[in-house]
Amino acid sequence: MRVRQFLIGALAVLVGGAASAAAPTRDDLLADAVNTQDVVTYGMGLNVNRFSPLDQINAKTVDKLAPAWTANLDDDRGQEAQPLVHDGVIYAITHKSTFAFDARTGKQLWRHDLSFEKRMARVVCCGMIARGAVLYEGKLIRQALDNRVLALDMKTGQEVWSVQAADWQDGYTMTGAPLVADGVVIAGVAGGDMGVRGFLDGYDASTGKKLWRFWTTAGPDDPAGKTWEGDAYLHGGGATWLPGSYDPKLDLVYWGIGNPGPWNATVRPGDNLYTDSVVALRPKTGELVWHYQYIPNDTFDYDGVNELIQADLQIDGKTRQVILNANRNGFFYVIDRATGELLRANQFIDNQNWAKGLEPKTGRPILSDTAKAVLAGEEQVIWPSNIGGKNWGPASFNPNTGLVYLNGFELSMKYKLLNASWRRGMMFVAADFSFRLPEGGPPLGYLRAVDPLTGKRVWQVPYDPPANGGTLSTAGELVFTGLMTGELVAHHARTGKLLWSHKTASGIIGPPITYELDGQQYVAVMSGIGGLLALYLPHPELAKVPKGGSLTVFRLPAGGAQ
Amino acid sequence: MRVRQFLIGALAVLVGGAASAAAPTRDDLLADAVNTQDVVTYGMGLNVNRFSPLDQINAKTVDKLAPAWTANLDDDRGQEAQPLVHDGVIYAITHKSTFAFDARTGKQLWRHDLSFEKRMARVVCCGMIARGAVLYEGKLIRQALDNRVLALDMKTGQEVWSVQAADWQDGYTMTGAPLVADGVVIAGVAGGDMGVRGFLDGYDASTGKKLWRFWTTAGPDDPAGKTWEGDAYLHGGGATWLPGSYDPKLDLVYWGIGNPGPWNATVRPGDNLYTDSVVALRPKTGELVWHYQYIPNDTFDYDGVNELIQADLQIDGKTRQVILNANRNGFFYVIDRATGELLRANQFIDNQNWAKGLEPKTGRPILSDTAKAVLAGEEQVIWPSNIGGKNWGPASFNPNTGLVYLNGFELSMKYKLLNASWRRGMMFVAADFSFRLPEGGPPLGYLRAVDPLTGKRVWQVPYDPPANGGTLSTAGELVFTGLMTGELVAHHARTGKLLWSHKTASGIIGPPITYELDGQQYVAVMSGIGGLLALYLPHPELAKVPKGGSLTVFRLPAGGAQ
Repeated sequence: MRVRQFLIGALAVLVGGAASAAAPTRDDLLADAVNTQDVVTYGMGLNVNRFSPLDQINAKTVDKLAPAWTANLDDDRGQEAQPLVHDGVIYAITHKSTFAFDARTGKQLWRHDLSFEKRMARVVCCGMIARGAVLYEGKLIRQALDNRVLALDMKTGQEVWSVQAADWQDGYTMTGAPLVADGVVIAGVAGGDMGVRGFLDGYDASTGKKLWRFWTTAGPDDPAGKTWEGDAYLHGGGATWLPGSYDPKLDLVYWGIGNPGPWNATVRPGDNLYTDSVVALRPKTGELVWHYQYIPNDTFDYDGVNELIQADLQIDGKTRQVILNANRNGFFYVIDRATGELLRANQFIDNQNWAKGLEPKTGRPILSDTAKAVLAGEEQVIWPSNIGGKNWGPASFNPNTGLVYLNGFELSMKYKLLNASWRRGMMFVAADFSFRLPEGGPPLGYLRAVDPLTGKRVWQVPYDPPANGGTLSTAGELVFTGLMTGELVAHHARTGKLLWSHKTASGIIGPPITYELDGQQYVAVMSGIGGLLALYLPHPELAKVPKGGSLTVFRLPAGGAQ
Repeated sequence: MRVRQFLIGALAVLVGGAASAAAPTRDDLLADAVNTQDVVTYGMGLNVNRFSPLDQINAKTVDKLAPAWTANLDDDRGQEAQPLVHDGVIYAITHKSTFAFDARTGKQLWRHDLSFEKRMARVVCCGMIARGAVLYEGKLIRQALDNRVLALDMKTGQEVWSVQAADWQDGYTMTGAPLVADGVVIAGVAGGDMGVRGFLDGYDASTGKKLWRFWTTAGPDDPAGKTWEGDAYLHGGGATWLPGSYDPKLDLVYWGIGNPGPWNATVRPGDNLYTDSVVALRPKTGELVWHYQYIPNDTFDYDGVNELIQADLQIDGKTRQVILNANRNGFFYVIDRATGELLRANQFIDNQNWAKGLEPKTGRPILSDTAKAVLAGEEQVIWPSNIGGKNWGPASFNPNTGLVYLNGFELSMKYKLLNASWRRGMMFVAADFSFRLPEGGPPLGYLRAVDPLTGKRVWQVPYDPPANGGTLSTAGELVFTGLMTGELVAHHARTGKLLWSHKTASGIIGPPITYELDGQQYVAVMSGIGGLLALYLPHPELAKVPKGGSLTVFRLPAGGAQ
């Protein structure tokens, strides 16, 4: 605790900050990674490490972990959201509601409901879901599928402000969680497969006033606009549907940009910036400071949106401030987060066949003959599939082990490019794909402990159907993840040994969190089958998982911590 | 265990029985009250005692009780059903589905779905619900809202047989659980407020062939037909929507018959047999052996359906074989189950004003002036309301304490008789009522330990909103009940002291069960707000309970039984 207090103090001094503002304050956000009592950001800290210094629940005690209470969420769609905690209240969101529960009893304090036009469902590619929110200055700020960004009063659930960011009839939806950086709410959009032009918006957190927009497909007013031909950039994808991270010292927001649209690269020549890239922006202005592109002119839907974990790593004898990205394309990228310099990029999956390798310094992919055959119009089996070597489920980083814990996939797709023409708000993919599920074959997924500098799997545990809800790491040397069959499981962070499992009410497809309340460590996770994999992966076990969203809160029984 | 084995053996000898039939056999049904490993009947035994000889979970250990697993039920309506257990499989039903789960892991083994005409909802008075099933000779036998009785293969969930008992367009629905007695499936109907003529049907358990029908409103072919005038009996109510009980030695089935219809008694002169009665029938033929009427010509909707618990009690120095009935009308009836002789009838609630008392020998009510004023057309405040001094939630009887544990109500209604004419399948009530919820007033409900011979509350614990899911009693001196706010609670059977509480995902409105698996005692309960009270009781706390059906299975953690 002393370390935590020191860190919070240090951060407060560093940033100064509005002491009179309602909690959670700017300092609370900055301290979220080290403050064990609250979880106010998506990612459990602006560095999105999903690591907690708590260790009451550990390898010795975890076998006694049991639910303290459960709450239904009145929603039978997929539950991909991360809960939040502040001052003894736990907040959970579904695609249509926001709930505040007393964290001690599970009693509902308030509920806010959204309503949507029914027709909107046709532009929702991957499930009627929501991924989370942020708590800031007395407000819960979330996004809604119909492209609203809204702030609710944390005490009452009443709407404080609401902004319409885009029109769903153009193919846009919002499924991500907003990031608050330097008082600015930054919100991204989905729709990269619906012919949209991706963007990030910055809003004043107090009023919802729009401050800036950053277009993720560069237009003529941007030097990078020359990486597109004609008006392809206008429907060029580059969605921003997963939250970024923020380094307050560098004052840079990092955001992963999605695949170009349509998937067929031959119809949009050029590098197609900033698709399949990471961009570093100034939060106050949206100014681009640097970018790094994983795949120029991607043709495999290798959405570059995966989370950007901040870490300080020893590389070539120096401490480097980096971001870590386990990319869908099967490579693990380590990038200097001050400059965008690529430091490492290593394969972290067993099977990939789209790239012969990456160019040594730039990391630019060298396409394989298989990839070239696809571009020439042939149908090919491509590893990994467009679900990726890792899907959206957020990884965690444990600074004590130096390892990244992630839900990995070993899944291929039959793939062939097609023709398609853009029509407003219609699917704009221009490719045909299907997943290959080997009968009795090797497992489709693994919980993996990955060395970020080498891509090596230090340990891995098969899960089939694959897990995709993300992981949580703790100083108790535990890694938690949820399974699509409903179990929340805990593995040893150093060995991968399964230490505990508890089946929740439905399938888990969202990230667990941990926090401290009245001196006890809690773990919370939402359960509710749905989302992309339940829709598209025809796995026989998934058909046996009953639908229904709920929140389960776990703790050790009295005396169980000894 | 030795006692249990002896009893099972004795029952097997007594009844003989088809040893070659698939389990659960006739003997298994007869032994359900003492066999701790399975729960194959509604009521945890044909005597519907809802008492278990298990005592691993007791006053000393219950504080460690925690969920072992949870399963969603993909249904956001009220969950009033009692789960069943056989051979390591737990069965749960909702109004639209039947599930089999591996009792050890919670993994779904199979699921069977019903479908209904949407228009049917208009004849469902009190929520789209189901109350349970029975397991017999390899089949799960249940009823469906659209008046089907169906048998599913316990191993596969495939339909074995299905019978259409009535037409919902006449106002009939089926919400009860069937009773199997002497190889006959006995099934009742709801619809007493929809102008139906009530009945009980007997079906061959192997084939679904209809064996008999007993009309609960006596027609011209029955001597009791003279208790009706004209054709009032044709729409006279007398629903049979809660399961009965069975005494195999006397070969008598006991069933509670609902209120007469319409509620306004002045439009249907006469005693209106067999409404508001208990009837004793031969299971093979449906022959009426005796009946006892609680209220002739009832005008308050005091539905006589509540469960009929079998017990052997010392009365006036003799052991009497009795049935116990905590009636909605506020009186606790003790009736000789061989003869129908009334032995005791005492008020078991604090407030009642419809009867001055009961006639000493017959128990026939002596109406109060308030009741007479209602019959004369005046609006009056009536205690108890038509929810009753006890509603449908089944009581339990602990033979060790001699007490009946029930969810009691102290709730009144504003009440006035109206005119109404019968129309097929339309509400046929002819009265206006509203519940009176005193602001900050005394609690509306209590968990009560009632002496069946005196009606005295040996202890009571207030619950507000009132509990209505029924109780479970155990040899561990515990009484379990579920609250509408979601908590499953355990009280000491002798003192009422609250020993344990766990909040499930939604409100609990169905009865808990207990059983033994691999040497461990389990408790299981369904959770899911809905049903009558959630629809009609405008209690502010109920609005804060999120919907969604689930099954939670509890046990002591490893080492927790010491």
